Amino acid sequence: MARQLHVKDLYTEDLADQTEVELTGWVKTVRASKNVGFIELNDGSSIHNVQIVMTKDLPNFEELGKLPISTTIQVTGELALTPKAQQPFEIHATAIKEIGQSNNDYPLQKKKHTYEYLRTMAHLRPRTTTFYAVFKIRSLAAFAVHQYLQGHDFTYVNTPLITSSDAEGAGEMFQVTTLDLNNLPKDDQGNVDETQDFFKKKTNLTVSGQLEVEAFALAFGNVYTFGPTFRAEDSHTTRHASEFWMIEPEMAFADLNDMMNEAQGLLKGVITYIFKHGMDELQFLNDNVDEHLIERLKTTEQEDFGRITYTEAIELLEKAPVEFKVPVYWGLDLQAEHERYITEQVFNKPVFITDYPKEIKAFYMRDNDDGKTVAAADLLVPEIGELIGGSQREERLAQLTDKIKEFGLSLDDYQWYLDLRKYGETEESGFGIGFERLVMYLTGMENIRDVIPYPRTPGNAEF
Amino acid sequence: MARQLHVKDLYTEDLADQTEVELTGWVKTVRASKNVGFIELNDGSSIHNVQIVMTKDLPNFEELGKLPISTTIQVTGELALTPKAQQPFEIHATAIKEIGQSNNDYPLQKKKHTYEYLRTMAHLRPRTTTFYAVFKIRSLAAFAVHQYLQGHDFTYVNTPLITSSDAEGAGEMFQVTTLDLNNLPKDDQGNVDETQDFFKKKTNLTVSGQLEVEAFALAFGNVYTFGPTFRAEDSHTTRHASEFWMIEPEMAFADLNDMMNEAQGLLKGVITYIFKHGMDELQFLNDNVDEHLIERLKTTEQEDFGRITYTEAIELLEKAPVEFKVPVYWGLDLQAEHERYITEQVFNKPVFITDYPKEIKAFYMRDNDDGKTVAAADLLVPEIGELIGGSQREERLAQLTDKIKEFGLSLDDYQWYLDLRKYGETEESGFGIGFERLVMYLTGMENIRDVIPYPRTPGNAEF
Repeated sequence: MARQLHVKDLYTEDLADQTEVELTGWVKTVRASKNVGFIELNDGSSIHNVQIVMTKDLPNFEELGKLPISTTIQVTGELALTPKAQQPFEIHATAIKEIGQSNNDYPLQKKKHTYEYLRTMAHLRPRTTTFYAVFKIRSLAAFAVHQYLQGHDFTYVNTPLITSSDAEGAGEMFQVTTLDLNNLPKDDQGNVDETQDFFKKKTNLTVSGQLEVEAFALAFGNVYTFGPTFRAEDSHTTRHASEFWMIEPEMAFADLNDMMNEAQGLLKGVITYIFKHGMDELQFLNDNVDEHLIERLKTTEQEDFGRITYTEAIELLEKAPVEFKVPVYWGLDLQAEHERYITEQVFNKPVFITDYPKEIKAFYMRDNDDGKTVAAADLLVPEIGELIGGSQREERLAQLTDKIKEFGLSLDDYQWYLDLRKYGETEESGFGIGFERLVMYLTGMENIRDVIPYPRTPGNAEF
Repeated sequence: MARQLHVKDLYTEDLADQTEVELTGWVKTVRASKNVGFIELNDGSSIHNVQIVMTKDLPNFEELGKLPISTTIQVTGELALTPKAQQPFEIHATAIKEIGQSNNDYPLQKKKHTYEYLRTMAHLRPRTTTFYAVFKIRSLAAFAVHQYLQGHDFTYVNTPLITSSDAEGAGEMFQVTTLDLNNLPKDDQGNVDETQDFFKKKTNLTVSGQLEVEAFALAFGNVYTFGPTFRAEDSHTTRHASEFWMIEPEMAFADLNDMMNEAQGLLKGVITYIFKHGMDELQFLNDNVDEHLIERLKTTEQEDFGRITYTEAIELLEKAPVEFKVPVYWGLDLQAEHERYITEQVFNKPVFITDYPKEIKAFYMRDNDDGKTVAAADLLVPEIGELIGGSQREERLAQLTDKIKEFGLSLDDYQWYLDLRKYGETEESGFGIGFERLVMYLTGMENIRDVIPYPRTPGNAEF
């Protein structure tokens, strides 16, 4: 009897010539002449298709030659090893059965489509080899993150998406409501009565789970979030989406150096995992999307990341034989052009910039003794710019209280966060990785819309 | 020089008596008499504390005896193996340094607090042993799900949270908006002008990623989502939260039996993983929360799940020597009391109920040939009731189109979903697991608010 196999099995198992096999999958291409025809078949288990050879001995040979792309078929046949051909084997079909119809107006015909066009059909584009590779690597990368962190004793924490706090006061937020917008309840002053909303107050979608996960770092030591975050910014760039996933590891008993070591280890660990489990997909993307992809990832995997202070970075930029659009001075919030100059031109590998001016960083970052900078570290990588942002947290209750006031935030809003210090000041550091930027880095894709299954950007929430 | 260790290392490494060690952690308890004192220390790496013994030889002995709970200290000392004592070892301190203050009004003193009280301090409760155990198991379970599914060639897909579709037309939804509720733009008719909202239309938070992930099953074969979902229902039960995580595996080329096999394998695989990596936490919960926990999980791990049809279940219920609050008849949507009778009294183990009346199930489930039932399967488990809901999907384009119309849904809204069938009808099945219910099942906790780091329920979105 024929062995029921997946396409992947053909590539990974050591099958004997003439093994009888049965495969079920989708027609990716079909071409037929008078006496012989070829179907490229895939079932999703591999990036590679398998070639089915059919002859006019098949009773339905003529219909088979006209099958629309994406028809579901069941193939019985004999494995033929073809060690000298481009493909190492093919299947000589003894029977092919159509088990699910497709249609001739299938919109992804063999010709190459633009990414723009494919974005209009997010439900079909995973069927293309490029998006198969991208979303397979996205899946492998997500798992690699979990595996690395769990292997390093990090506890996974699901911080809330709906929140009544606005985290760091940074970033515009989406409001979440069950009020009927066409019939809003009003208070005495004629304003919307938020106490009648679902949560009895105004709520938003989170921009970061950091503050909430810190509470868990102070119970578990090492923790991380990995979940969706949201920004209601009207950005129309290739690097911003309204809904994206963030990885936020947080470590008690860890200073800024520990944080950089952990971030470097995680990034290298993810790349090692992809090399091991996604090499076929990487190779396809290297051949078709970005010819430097594998080389760049190898460098990142093998070399120590650079580390310079913000002050050193400013000096480098001031000496640079380049005219920047935004002039450089100490205190400047570095722009993409500056970041890319440093990581691409000076280092040509990932580099941490540390100890930023306190004014351009968040309130929770730990003040350095110089009184001017904070213990922050951003990781810049070639082609992407900022990939990771982290810091040592201000664990000293008195200093943290002052910082909240200095930043014009409300002590009431942060009472619970201050509690974390009131009951056990503990050295602590953490960082955030935008998961989509990581996937862009791992795939060579240049638009964030092409690494998200169903991207959400201003004006776009289809499907 | 003293070895810097984590508490976990003391329990897992084979350390020699009198090893010099250095530990940094939090004071969990402290008691001292005139000449000797004991500190229970923890650093989050283990559910177990380590006992620090201090004598009045320490220059700061008196202050140490008065340390508030949760003070951060650094301990240098000598490991003393105590094989005959309850604890296998203790640390004889040679120096103890306070490195971060706490306060005497620390709200979690040693006495036992109610879960209700602890819910008011979600930022501190992970520091209790019970919640440490619960959230550690939550983390292990999440990883076990990923590891099992990735090991079975499932590709992880992040389906969108913000959506303009309402999935299956089931469940009340939260609206997502950036409009200023106190200054809403209006159209000609005086209604809210949704085209001026962020996404240029009305958007909601998703109730399920199933339809979106199906598109990926038809490219990758096996896929799964694992992310947050939302229900804006005004439920105040112990089993409903407004924000919760769902695992939704979806398989092409799979019928209802394949689906049940996969669901059973996944649940058993998660339990096996927890037995291997979370036994200390399970044992604590078995001793303190639910004395049948481990026994119940062992049964689930070892025995095949029961399988009966809905029609057989109705017959069992009609014959039951029990008076149900809701009377039983063929066509009834089974209530918790019925589900628990079947899984707890009849089977005393997990049981699948299959082939439900089509009227009480969703439109996308595949019609059986009897014209009355659909190929659905729900898994009921003791103590929880429904843990998994799944079905074979209607892959036949004509039947699916009819079902959408029968259910009064709009063909326009589902055009892209119909496309998936138009271009390759494929046998397909999938299921959903409410992750929090799974964690309740794995921990014995009875209130969903106690297995979510920061629970969201009607009127509650604190932190």
